[in-house]
Amino acid sequence: MDLYASFSSLFTLADLVGTIAFAMSGVMLASRLKMDMVGVVVLAFLPACGGGTVRDLLLGATPFWMEQPYYLYAVFFTAMVGQFTVVHYHESLPRWVLPTFDAIGLAVFTVAGIDKALLYGFGWEVSVTMGVLTGCGGGLLRDVVATERAGLLSTEVYATVSLAGGLLLFVMRKLELFNLGTMSFIACVFIFVFRMIAWHRNWHLPRVVLK
Amino acid sequence: MDLYASFSSLFTLADLVGTIAFAMSGVMLASRLKMDMVGVVVLAFLPACGGGTVRDLLLGATPFWMEQPYYLYAVFFTAMVGQFTVVHYHESLPRWVLPTFDAIGLAVFTVAGIDKALLYGFGWEVSVTMGVLTGCGGGLLRDVVATERAGLLSTEVYATVSLAGGLLLFVMRKLELFNLGTMSFIACVFIFVFRMIAWHRNWHLPRVVLK
Amino acid sequence: MDLYASFSSLFTLADLVGTIAFAMSGVMLASRLKMDMVGVVVLAFLPACGGGTVRDLLLGATPFWMEQPYYLYAVFFTAMVGQFTVVHYHESLPRWVLPTFDAIGLAVFTVAGIDKALLYGFGWEVSVTMGVLTGCGGGLLRDVVATERAGLLSTEVYATVSLAGGLLLFVMRKLELFNLGTMSFIACVFIFVFRMIAWHRNWHLPRVVLK
Repeated sequence: MDLYASFSSLFTLADLVGTIAFAMSGVMLASRLKMDMVGVVVLAFLPACGGGTVRDLLLGATPFWMEQPYYLYAVFFTAMVGQFTVVHYHESLPRWVLPTFDAIGLAVFTVAGIDKALLYGFGWEVSVTMGVLTGCGGGLLRDVVATERAGLLSTEVYATVSLAGGLLLFVMRKLELFNLGTMSFIACVFIFVFRMIAWHRNWHLPRVVLK
Repeated sequence: MDLYASFSSLFTLADLVGTIAFAMSGVMLASRLKMDMVGVVVLAFLPACGGGTVRDLLLGATPFWMEQPYYLYAVFFTAMVGQFTVVHYHESLPRWVLPTFDAIGLAVFTVAGIDKALLYGFGWEVSVTMGVLTGCGGGLLRDVVATERAGLLSTEVYATVSLAGGLLLFVMRKLELFNLGTMSFIACVFIFVFRMIAWHRNWHLPRVVLK
Repeated sequence: MDLYASFSSLFTLADLVGTIAFAMSGVMLASRLKMDMVGVVVLAFLPACGGGTVRDLLLGATPFWMEQPYYLYAVFFTAMVGQFTVVHYHESLPRWVLPTFDAIGLAVFTVAGIDKALLYGFGWEVSVTMGVLTGCGGGLLRDVVATERAGLLSTEVYATVSLAGGLLLFVMRKLELFNLGTMSFIACVFIFVFRMIAWHRNWHLPRVVLK
């Protein structure tokens, strides 16, 4: 089907854009922490592939980048090019560029994670959890390995967006509103738009404080 | 057998109490670190399910909460209710409540970890290790993800209690002292009592210091 | 073949020396951080067995130490003896001893990791990655769990050496220069010598700094 095929190409492109944007977040952190090239590569790999890797281990699958090593090339290329370019010139980039690419990654990774878990026969609670893990787990791993307190846990509306998108996909699928490709596409757009608004308005969840 | 059946129900109840108590330890930490709801849920999940998840990955099993998603509900419920209740009123709780529930969790998780590893055909060294990992690994993960230096590694007699209970179970099983359920029950009670004494007397292991 | 058999015994010996040296690095860190015995054992286990464990999980294999529990004994023994001896007398040890043993571990673990990944049918990109992970991942885990910023990411030429040795092995294998045992041996010697030079001259990679 033409429509489905074009969703599919778009999805592959968005997956690559997301991988590069997530890897770039690690490159920026590594340079802020004055790491060397090894640190850059490790911190680029973790957000780009870490969430999906943990998901695949939990599902009992071979991690996706071990079956499709071009992800390794994408990460390595981003780390190498990124540390000599974006890191130095990022202030001349319009400030919406990295967050936009990052939001694309969050959208695509979340939906891909849910699809994969459903494919492996898990129910909706587990699949939505796998989606959020795929979208947000890598950034958490990046921060933990860099021994930075993870922003995910206390700043910005990020995992919440991923969870909301996953629940939207769940509802659409239960109601069989559209065909599969269209519903995935809608969930992606929802996550992307919701995340961009949250970023733009600098939304935060309330914090819990021990009295 | 009636006796075995009642052990079994008691074990299921204790498993739930332990899960909630472990999740609560994450809620308390998240609120001390001023995290938001996402942080609360993540830090509740890790101690409650993290140790058993790592155990299951090592054993080559599907993580237990992916097959029985009510653990996800228990964690989510604890995180949501906990952050609005216990966190605020914990000073009016008798101070033995949380440590007692935690000790129940330590006991049940340790014995359940050992049983599962034996079931998968591993020997005693590995099975006792899996028991300690199930009982203590989640708390370690919680602290590492929160970038707190883990209390497990330097304070209190905690993993030691778990290990001692595992070794006791090993000795009882080798000597075939009682039936399986009774031996598990005895090991649980031993861990619980030993841990409560260690907590009450504030026992510590000696520290190793580099001259 | 006699030559192959002697490589094989040498390799087993070097694997044990490396395990003990890696475990010792954890014992030293635990004592610097004033941890107790539990901390010593955990921080000894992670560098000695952590990298290979993650590798085995990614490959879909049972972690090596669960099939050969004598690794657990080696780690436990090193932790117990180490905290009462080397920790206290390490200043009277010639200062090359621990780095030399560590370099032996790096060499053997890297090559063993590559061999195992190839055995599981993965291509060269993945296998070399698994080699570096086996050689360096454990030390990274040790530092992350101790919430120390990992030296791997920003100091010393360490992972780079492992990667270079892996690529050398790849080139030799593609050109079918020697028999398998000889090529593994050459790659080990290369990593060992390269690492010792890097250590002796205190080589560092350039750091990336955000302007």
